[in-house]
Amino acid sequence: MLTRRVRHVLSAHASPRGVGTRGRCGPSWGGDVDRVGTLLQLCADRHYISPGRSDAQLWRRGLSCSLGPLGAELRRNLLEQWWHSVTRSRAQVFGINTLSSSSSSSSSNDDDDRDTGGQLRTVESERLKRILEQQELSKEQIVHEVQTLLQRSPSVRTDLLQGALEEFVPSLELVNRKLPFGLAETGRCFQPSEGSDCPAEVTQTSLVWFCSPRTSSQWLDHWARQRLKWWRKFSLSPSDFSSSDVPEEELVEAASRGVRIVYNFPWGQEALEALWSRGDTELLKTHKGDRSKLQCRNERMSVPHVVSVTGNMDRGLMAFLSNSLQLLKKEDGKQRLLQRKVLKLHPVLAPVKVALDIGRGATVELRRVCEGLMQEFLETKISVWPGYLETVPTSMEQLHAKYDEMGVLFTVVISDNTLESGLLQVRSRDTTIKETMHISEIRSFLSRYISAADKI
Amino acid sequence: MLTRRVRHVLSAHASPRGVGTRGRCGPSWGGDVDRVGTLLQLCADRHYISPGRSDAQLWRRGLSCSLGPLGAELRRNLLEQWWHSVTRSRAQVFGINTLSSSSSSSSSNDDDDRDTGGQLRTVESERLKRILEQQELSKEQIVHEVQTLLQRSPSVRTDLLQGALEEFVPSLELVNRKLPFGLAETGRCFQPSEGSDCPAEVTQTSLVWFCSPRTSSQWLDHWARQRLKWWRKFSLSPSDFSSSDVPEEELVEAASRGVRIVYNFPWGQEALEALWSRGDTELLKTHKGDRSKLQCRNERMSVPHVVSVTGNMDRGLMAFLSNSLQLLKKEDGKQRLLQRKVLKLHPVLAPVKVALDIGRGATVELRRVCEGLMQEFLETKISVWPGYLETVPTSMEQLHAKYDEMGVLFTVVISDNTLESGLLQVRSRDTTIKETMHISEIRSFLSRYISAADKI
Repeated sequence: MLTRRVRHVLSAHASPRGVGTRGRCGPSWGGDVDRVGTLLQLCADRHYISPGRSDAQLWRRGLSCSLGPLGAELRRNLLEQWWHSVTRSRAQVFGINTLSSSSSSSSSNDDDDRDTGGQLRTVESERLKRILEQQELSKEQIVHEVQTLLQRSPSVRTDLLQGALEEFVPSLELVNRKLPFGLAETGRCFQPSEGSDCPAEVTQTSLVWFCSPRTSSQWLDHWARQRLKWWRKFSLSPSDFSSSDVPEEELVEAASRGVRIVYNFPWGQEALEALWSRGDTELLKTHKGDRSKLQCRNERMSVPHVVSVTGNMDRGLMAFLSNSLQLLKKEDGKQRLLQRKVLKLHPVLAPVKVALDIGRGATVELRRVCEGLMQEFLETKISVWPGYLETVPTSMEQLHAKYDEMGVLFTVVISDNTLESGLLQVRSRDTTIKETMHISEIRSFLSRYISAADKI
Repeated sequence: MLTRRVRHVLSAHASPRGVGTRGRCGPSWGGDVDRVGTLLQLCADRHYISPGRSDAQLWRRGLSCSLGPLGAELRRNLLEQWWHSVTRSRAQVFGINTLSSSSSSSSSNDDDDRDTGGQLRTVESERLKRILEQQELSKEQIVHEVQTLLQRSPSVRTDLLQGALEEFVPSLELVNRKLPFGLAETGRCFQPSEGSDCPAEVTQTSLVWFCSPRTSSQWLDHWARQRLKWWRKFSLSPSDFSSSDVPEEELVEAASRGVRIVYNFPWGQEALEALWSRGDTELLKTHKGDRSKLQCRNERMSVPHVVSVTGNMDRGLMAFLSNSLQLLKKEDGKQRLLQRKVLKLHPVLAPVKVALDIGRGATVELRRVCEGLMQEFLETKISVWPGYLETVPTSMEQLHAKYDEMGVLFTVVISDNTLESGLLQVRSRDTTIKETMHISEIRSFLSRYISAADKI
């Protein structure tokens, strides 16, 4: 399990606060150190991250790690929300889908040594090994052959910008050479592992916006406002998300202005998304300086300027998990102080909307009712947790504690009463209130609840 | 443009039929050769594939290529349908999300030379170059250093199976050690480029199903039926999709049975999806033979058998494009014979559901109506083509021809009449019939139309 890693994070963030030892999660009441440890343990226990392959350091660096079923669904929801918000906010945003690797010969940076600095290439290890094993070759020959193989190996992308710059020309025809328009894409990008043996991947979101030189600064502000609003929409405490201008000394090459959207993690601020006003340098370079291919009808046939909006959704996922974890004190029946952990993910993001369980009664009949209800939910694309399949007896209290940690919005309990009167019990994660509802109403109640939360 | 590549395919499939030269697409009436050429040209013209970077050979080999806006949306729809059909068909299928690369030290195949045969590794080219440039090193030292770097470089995945086998143990806890259950994932995989400099990527879909040894053959049949049904559901001529048992001599290692789902492309049959009954060999190997970790509660504590269902969605996308292209003869006003090309993609898959255009009338007011309608559609997640933004005048006939090639389901025309009476004109891609409808009805008409098609 995570224990070793959790300890690692705890020691990395040692603070004088919080040294309780209650429960398996180690220190628990208050304090940022405890919070990180508790969150990581919960994410592993509740199948957000895969316990065997997760690593707190990866999270802190904002890198991908293997996700369990709940994490995978949260990631899907997050990317879908990003996609809708970006591609459907304006008529002029189009989705694209480019390759993760490109053949070296088509690379636009052939003649530019600076750009090949951190470049990663996928090499066929057998071919490389065969070269190294050729005893008859001289040192110079081996060096030459390895260099040739390396040059011919495809390079993998480190960001999505280059793909969008290349798609600019075909897309221009689509919009009849009229500005502004944008190209959106999400996908995995690769980073040099910086000395460690660990592969470094990032799930990126990218909007590349092409506009007239005159308006690029306004568009940068427009998208920065939109993006901040988006992050805050799904958060429990919106003030933990903020945006700020990038100081001049930190600007990326070619950029005249930059804005970062950051999240206040327990261990400090980290950038979730970066927006840059990049001018036309990179676009011109990608298309070998051929201005005639790049000119647009409006704005006096000028070459458009590029505003890039690049997000790290692995870090975004962690931000929402961190933001939504509530640690509450609670007394149990014997007046012992317990900690209640609730993952209050936004209804739209929560990977499981409803858990279906059975109470007292004839198990076979109750399960049949659950199966019918399950199908109904799946048809409406409401994700369900099939608690009724569980055969190991658990108390309702334990069940609620588990579902709260999973972030399940509602728990529906089917019992003998349901068979008689059609009434079932619905318990809310956020209010902990239990209500009685007729079985015929539950589906539309949930749909309405989720879409109402989406519209706020 | 595609012309050179189209010709390449044409020559590769030369047949005595069809040598007309009407239009820019080259040969047109009938014949498979023409069909491939026409399809590729249409895909490039209508922004399904990116003209600059697409390659007919990639399509034939079933590899990814860069997709334009319409192709990217089609791919999204296809993957979403796959996801819903697999994860929501049964309560026991869970989504996962694993990394595309793994550090060599964690690889389960360290001691198995066979598996490293085609292995791809991402190498930092700068580090490799630095080794090669060290003049003072002997040949043996260089060979040793390159080998060490290669071993420490992450290997990229060639399929999604290994990730699911690794996730088996954490998932087992989720289902309380009860069989059967499945792990689903979609993502990019990499393949050796086989001598060419071209990077080889495939968009894979993967369901790995864990079940008792006794039932694995039945499950293989179950999933093969389900999958074939799925492919046929979205096709215009379902009989082009078929399934067949894999002959014994073609079985993959460890598999006792296999089924392939193939599509009848104009150039011959190609496999879209492969299902294998794989036994427990690979699962045991992945977890170093530790049976106690793998045993399940039911079925006398046996180690589960694995049924893998692996699809190539790049080829799937091409199959649906190929399947949905209808070439129809048509007379124009001057009794010239024209070819009408319609991409009759299934309503659920079609990347653009409705195009919004303006007819005769006051442009400013009509545009405002279009913008309102556009927002309404976007809120209901109906994808719209903003034809009203077009400022170059086009005849309605040209417009319909273009939208038919794009596969747009309906074309809505707003005119003066709409401002007066609220009535607009709706033209169907499939029937070419034009109907009059009130503006307040169009959104629910489209929603109903699409969801009705989904349920058939």
